[in-house]
Amino acid sequence: MKNIVVQKFGGTSVADTDKIKNVAKAVIKERNNGNDVVVVVSAMGHTTDYLVKMAKEISENPSSREMDMLLSTGEGVSIALLSMALQAQGCPAVSMNAIQVGIMTEKVHSKARIINIKTDKIRRHLDKGEVVVVAGFQGVTDDLEITTLGRGGSDTSAVALAGALNAIRCDIYTDVEGVYTTDPRVVPNASRLDEISYEEMLELARVGANVLHPRAVETAKQYKVPLRVRSTFKLDNLGTLILGVDEMELHRPVSGVASDLSQLRIVVCDVKDNPGTAAVLFNGLANENISVDMIIQSYARKALNTNDIAFTIDKGDLDKAMEILEKVKKDLEFSNVFVDDKIAKISIVGAGMIDRPGIAATMFKTLADLGINIKMISTSEIKISCIVAEDKAKEAVIGLHKVFHLDSEEIAEVKGDLPPEV
Amino acid sequence: MKNIVVQKFGGTSVADTDKIKNVAKAVIKERNNGNDVVVVVSAMGHTTDYLVKMAKEISENPSSREMDMLLSTGEGVSIALLSMALQAQGCPAVSMNAIQVGIMTEKVHSKARIINIKTDKIRRHLDKGEVVVVAGFQGVTDDLEITTLGRGGSDTSAVALAGALNAIRCDIYTDVEGVYTTDPRVVPNASRLDEISYEEMLELARVGANVLHPRAVETAKQYKVPLRVRSTFKLDNLGTLILGVDEMELHRPVSGVASDLSQLRIVVCDVKDNPGTAAVLFNGLANENISVDMIIQSYARKALNTNDIAFTIDKGDLDKAMEILEKVKKDLEFSNVFVDDKIAKISIVGAGMIDRPGIAATMFKTLADLGINIKMISTSEIKISCIVAEDKAKEAVIGLHKVFHLDSEEIAEVKGDLPPEV
Repeated sequence: MKNIVVQKFGGTSVADTDKIKNVAKAVIKERNNGNDVVVVVSAMGHTTDYLVKMAKEISENPSSREMDMLLSTGEGVSIALLSMALQAQGCPAVSMNAIQVGIMTEKVHSKARIINIKTDKIRRHLDKGEVVVVAGFQGVTDDLEITTLGRGGSDTSAVALAGALNAIRCDIYTDVEGVYTTDPRVVPNASRLDEISYEEMLELARVGANVLHPRAVETAKQYKVPLRVRSTFKLDNLGTLILGVDEMELHRPVSGVASDLSQLRIVVCDVKDNPGTAAVLFNGLANENISVDMIIQSYARKALNTNDIAFTIDKGDLDKAMEILEKVKKDLEFSNVFVDDKIAKISIVGAGMIDRPGIAATMFKTLADLGINIKMISTSEIKISCIVAEDKAKEAVIGLHKVFHLDSEEIAEVKGDLPPEV
Repeated sequence: MKNIVVQKFGGTSVADTDKIKNVAKAVIKERNNGNDVVVVVSAMGHTTDYLVKMAKEISENPSSREMDMLLSTGEGVSIALLSMALQAQGCPAVSMNAIQVGIMTEKVHSKARIINIKTDKIRRHLDKGEVVVVAGFQGVTDDLEITTLGRGGSDTSAVALAGALNAIRCDIYTDVEGVYTTDPRVVPNASRLDEISYEEMLELARVGANVLHPRAVETAKQYKVPLRVRSTFKLDNLGTLILGVDEMELHRPVSGVASDLSQLRIVVCDVKDNPGTAAVLFNGLANENISVDMIIQSYARKALNTNDIAFTIDKGDLDKAMEILEKVKKDLEFSNVFVDDKIAKISIVGAGMIDRPGIAATMFKTLADLGINIKMISTSEIKISCIVAEDKAKEAVIGLHKVFHLDSEEIAEVKGDLPPEV
């Protein structure tokens, strides 16, 4: 039995018929390595936007069941066209949508989770020597309802398929060349990482290096599927391999530096220091589905018996958060609320920082030497994040990138679809 | 239990989101009559053309399996959007594709025939008070392969569904107002027929009045489903009801006049008059899948022991037919072949012409009075067809329409999508 490789191509990789022919070449190249190949594709380029636009013309609030029915047609088009392109290049191929494969999900529309993937039909086609082209992003319930997987869906489909098929690797083809030590648009001599652990990738993904959705990385970690991020347009470049921390050859103290401008900071001043006040506040936020990232409670001012509580949330959640603060004002008895929306979260990530206490100190000293004031700090086992002023973000990233020896000799080539400009 | 009405809307009726909203109104109007409604829709306007164009860019000869996968996405879009439009107008609705319904077909791609339609899921949704919006044109095999039904597919889906559900009626909404006594572009005062029998409709469809595909009419006849052809854009107009000849109120001797310019005539001269010569020729044509419409063998010239054999075929089959004639030349010993591609087949159709021998005589006399020469004649129980010169077709249709009292007081309003201009 041959080894199986799962390849995933996103919307920009199959945006038009010429690009689809190019993708067919990448598939055939992998097949010529002697592996069985299963390909997962997203909808072509702007198809999803176009479908959403039509839905909005018809209904302000279309039902999520019908949205799933509508959007799932997008991958139906791309799997059929890619199969045709493979056949035209002499490679036996067959397309399969989620119903045909049996990508079983829970019955939740627009953000279903995969429960189980049936592999018998795919294996039968692979045994006949065919490449199997599978629709990403979509699933099906026991009673044949069509679902979609929500954000990061196609990557998740690919990784889950790789897990179910015991694939030796899942290659995520995209328009970046791999995972970089930081955004190459900020630091032109950012280095492409050859390897990175699932855990580091998760931390990087969460702080804004949106090469991969955290959900896909988590699924890969769960199934122990080695994941490769590579460019559709530079097939000779092997990209970055994401794998278990135990299998990594090299543990750098710091693998990457990232900045995240999506958050804002709220400081609630002079909160009465009674037991349970913090719970009232954060329960209120949680009930409204607002994710709180960093929380700092200042040392209580004993004379006044008050605290300051600072926390960060997504900028989009500000209005909802202020409503909740208004509601809990009586209980918390705070004096006033201060909102700071000009902040950046600067993070360094590295599986090798465990047991190296000097890393944090180096980060703080580097920022201090640059005259950058740290407003908040949070740490995990493999990540240290500091909140600084937004206009200092770029300088902070460049300084940290240099001090942790991440600079490359080469200047990275910058393409679209990278994280938002710092 | 309520009565069920099946409505079918073609591609031009759902060409854009405004038109889809309009279709939703027609559905709700029928539901307000107190009936359960199942709607069958085609792909939006030019979707199919666009998908075919992409397939051709990728492959000169795409596999029919992948073409079916590709094209079936078109109805996926329109059923979802129509369901959203119904919901937005306050009408509970649910979309279902062929796999979800269980429109079971044989495993033949691009022209599958329906074997069986499962009705349990549809009935369950109807019982909940929902309108069920079903994808036309597509089917599925036992092993979940997606098929399409080929020409006339969506009409056939609708009629077969109506049969399976014991619907009281199947309404085919289109952009013509019904079935006319002849093409209103040729005869502006053509009359819209209130009723016509399946048999007459079949004969009219076969001679060029392509309001409905013969396949859909045959299916309706088989299931005894009353079929109504009506306009999406004039909901007050009831169109034409097609039903069993026994249920018709009025049997006109002639219901319609049609002309068909798609054929040509081949005359094979001086064929040796031996038993079996005709069989050699027509078996050869049948083996190449060439449909022969009319055949006339002239009275044998006893002195020479030869015949002339004339027959008509579709213009597109000429090259293949000539190849076959070349092959059988030795057996048939004919002198030469004469091809006449400037012909028109003029037909009169009427369930009431049985047992009225004067009808044929009236047709021949009318043509003779107009100085139109008849090259071939064929008759069935409810149709008489004459081959005449192509440039006489219009004059013949106008003359026959008048002599059989089919002229209307009103001038028909002419829209697109009518049969090709005579």
